[in-house]
Amino acid sequence: MFPYKTSFHLVRKSNQALYLQLANQFITLIKERKLSPKTKLPGSRTLADLLGVHRKTVVACYDELLLQGWIESIAKKGTFVHANLPELFQQEFVKSVVKKVNSKIGFNFYKNENLERKIPVKKVDFMYLNDGVSDTRLTPTEDLARIYRRISSRKLIYKEMSYGSAFGNEKLRKTLSEYLNNTRGLNTSFENILITRGSQMGIYLSSKLLLNKDDKIIIGKTNYTSADNSFLERKANLVRISVDENGLVTQEIENLCKKNVIKAVYVTSHHHHPTTVTLSAERRIHLLNLAKKYNFAIIEDDYDYDFNYNHSPILPLASHDVNGNVIYIGSVCKTVAPVFRIGYLIAPKAFVNEAVNQRRIIDRQGDALLELTFEEFIKNGDLDRHIKKVMKVYKTRRDLFCQLLKEHFSTIFSFETPKGGMAVWVTLNKKYSWKTIVEVAQKHKLEIGNWQRYDPNNSNHNSIRMGFATYNETEINELINRLSKTMKEIVST
Amino acid sequence: MFPYKTSFHLVRKSNQALYLQLANQFITLIKERKLSPKTKLPGSRTLADLLGVHRKTVVACYDELLLQGWIESIAKKGTFVHANLPELFQQEFVKSVVKKVNSKIGFNFYKNENLERKIPVKKVDFMYLNDGVSDTRLTPTEDLARIYRRISSRKLIYKEMSYGSAFGNEKLRKTLSEYLNNTRGLNTSFENILITRGSQMGIYLSSKLLLNKDDKIIIGKTNYTSADNSFLERKANLVRISVDENGLVTQEIENLCKKNVIKAVYVTSHHHHPTTVTLSAERRIHLLNLAKKYNFAIIEDDYDYDFNYNHSPILPLASHDVNGNVIYIGSVCKTVAPVFRIGYLIAPKAFVNEAVNQRRIIDRQGDALLELTFEEFIKNGDLDRHIKKVMKVYKTRRDLFCQLLKEHFSTIFSFETPKGGMAVWVTLNKKYSWKTIVEVAQKHKLEIGNWQRYDPNNSNHNSIRMGFATYNETEINELINRLSKTMKEIVST
Repeated sequence: MFPYKTSFHLVRKSNQALYLQLANQFITLIKERKLSPKTKLPGSRTLADLLGVHRKTVVACYDELLLQGWIESIAKKGTFVHANLPELFQQEFVKSVVKKVNSKIGFNFYKNENLERKIPVKKVDFMYLNDGVSDTRLTPTEDLARIYRRISSRKLIYKEMSYGSAFGNEKLRKTLSEYLNNTRGLNTSFENILITRGSQMGIYLSSKLLLNKDDKIIIGKTNYTSADNSFLERKANLVRISVDENGLVTQEIENLCKKNVIKAVYVTSHHHHPTTVTLSAERRIHLLNLAKKYNFAIIEDDYDYDFNYNHSPILPLASHDVNGNVIYIGSVCKTVAPVFRIGYLIAPKAFVNEAVNQRRIIDRQGDALLELTFEEFIKNGDLDRHIKKVMKVYKTRRDLFCQLLKEHFSTIFSFETPKGGMAVWVTLNKKYSWKTIVEVAQKHKLEIGNWQRYDPNNSNHNSIRMGFATYNETEINELINRLSKTMKEIVST
Repeated sequence: MFPYKTSFHLVRKSNQALYLQLANQFITLIKERKLSPKTKLPGSRTLADLLGVHRKTVVACYDELLLQGWIESIAKKGTFVHANLPELFQQEFVKSVVKKVNSKIGFNFYKNENLERKIPVKKVDFMYLNDGVSDTRLTPTEDLARIYRRISSRKLIYKEMSYGSAFGNEKLRKTLSEYLNNTRGLNTSFENILITRGSQMGIYLSSKLLLNKDDKIIIGKTNYTSADNSFLERKANLVRISVDENGLVTQEIENLCKKNVIKAVYVTSHHHHPTTVTLSAERRIHLLNLAKKYNFAIIEDDYDYDFNYNHSPILPLASHDVNGNVIYIGSVCKTVAPVFRIGYLIAPKAFVNEAVNQRRIIDRQGDALLELTFEEFIKNGDLDRHIKKVMKVYKTRRDLFCQLLKEHFSTIFSFETPKGGMAVWVTLNKKYSWKTIVEVAQKHKLEIGNWQRYDPNNSNHNSIRMGFATYNETEINELINRLSKTMKEIVST
């Protein structure tokens, strides 16, 4: 007889039920041909005795194996390893039993090399110069969690918890529509709003609907790279135009439109990403006129709307769009915290309806509990209060950061103090190279990151974004200190 | 002078600040050419007096208009409407000021007619026959909300709230990896796991990586239509094969592989969607062997794993995959509630890494707070306890539902009691048509929905899914009652 007693290794304290351990080990033995087809198995009582387990365990195991088709029961004869199991498992099965990363791959797939990204390893005690990220210590997390829990404990909340609208929760769409109409001069109804998972999903959906292979989209010579990636993924033709101190040079758009079919223009009108400049009123009107004349879409990514330190924010292009050319994209990710994946896409109804069809096959729907949480957060004024609070903090940080940059690096860096946003666009004196700075900074525990991403066009502008919002004043001093040490080392060599 | 006094309508109790109301009304006047370029504006004190507002309000308004570029300030001369505003707004602007749905569209976009879907209007007092949806009244919502809030109040939680890994929270990936290895016999590390927004995102990402135009993917003649939509969206070639009482007929796959390059096979192995049958062990092995021989990917959508009433669940194909052919997709949406958008895609590491690159451009990242909530929910055993609890409930509902179907409709419907899942596959006697039943059911306040979606292939199988899990016993009786009245009316005519 097969050495049943020594062939099984059952762990009583395992998370896996005994019968399932037994069944899995049987399957292994069958696959490895140690128990070959047609082998008669011992009766449940016999095996239970051999293994020192309860008979019920063996019965449950045999049931499982029968159900899975590994064994068969023949009336009045007993239980056998199934006669018709095709050859399958070779030696390699035994190897794979060792729990490890599954790297073997038995099929081909399409890779998109544009999208590859080195993920930085977090280093202990390092400070990170980012490209403009909010400080999540300022997030009213507990307030939001309290609202979340209160909403979750409503008696009829279960009605919102099943499959729901891919447009997003209607209550939030209505509140948001009103909020944006009031604060940003938009003129839309909730039917123009799709709740997304943040700006990125808005850009992605717009790309899918607007761009196919070789379609032309106009972007800045410098541009937000995550948007570029969305357009590249559609195999679109990215046509780059100049950006000056008034934003996109719209005259270049006009020249292009005369000779080409332009499907869309992507614009971060409020603060151009990455250079932080604002699109002037004259160019806004020019751009809207061109869109009307040449029937292209304007993807207006207003990621930075809430942060404007000198004045109140400038109304978006979308608020002046009377011809239905603007797709307006925003989110609460920058304003509240990136972890809250709530954004919006606002556009003519036909476009929104098709975007929803596309969204349904991507992730079916959003998170209604979180959407209701933000509905309340916006409606009761918490969002506005939060913005007012953090604006003051970020303004102070901007002022300190810019002042220190000026004090320590006047011959090295040049920059304009940004009117808003969370980053300064810093140009390096051409005597120096970011490559060296990034390397030397490592010694001083400062991570500057991939400076090349700001120049996908290889225009050699020698500039990067430096985020000032994430760190408090002590930390900003320390960060500048590390950057100072870095630059001293470089200048002195 | 321009009639300033009567041209503005300021509302003091509005959500919009006075100066912004004033500025927006100025912009309208400028756009409508009521205030033409080069018009000199009154001094701030004069205008403040005319309008009965504080001078600061007018100053802020002028600042805003200057910043936006609508007006210009000329030293020693005063403030003027900007001389260089291109012609823009026609009569239509005035119309658009009326707040309404923005339906006008000034650009073209690509439509995908496969994805169009009529969204049913919720009708009062109607009961809905769905295709197998869980009962969210059974969801431990308060427990989950309590965990969510506890996690949100952790001192260092802000570290998890900024931009994070597009793979999903690492803690959840580790806990989930262990949980799935223990319960489903998988053999993976957390590096093989991408946390998605539910099964749909797993299917979508897989489609993107595996399929381009005309690539062949094998699916059942009956199949889960949301998966079909993902494949169609890639413009893939959907090759349909037979499904019998043992699931996909794998011999047909073998025949196809001999003459075609097959990129992938999509399989709902546990309970075939929509027919609810289980893929037999023999066919599982056959399918894995074919995948190995012909290097195709198996997309195993195990949406229904947790619900098996007669036996413990059958281990997935993924647990027997030694050659790296299986992409294993699942979620907690069916098990806990659809509102919780947490799912997973498990595959060889190279595939997961590329899926993450794609995911990053779709929605950047998941919701770390919710991911941590589920990490705890799984780790402390709550998920398992929840499954045990609802299993009993759903089994009782299945039994009642099937018993009533048998009692009332023995000559009309035929079906097999499903071993698991949340729906029965009900075949209608060819004497009758679903079309008529759906129509007559309306009179009895029963919504059956789009029966045709179960037969995309027009094979005329005359079957639909009837979900039994959503309703409690009283409600099931009422639902059957309405269906009875419907059928009586049809049979008697």
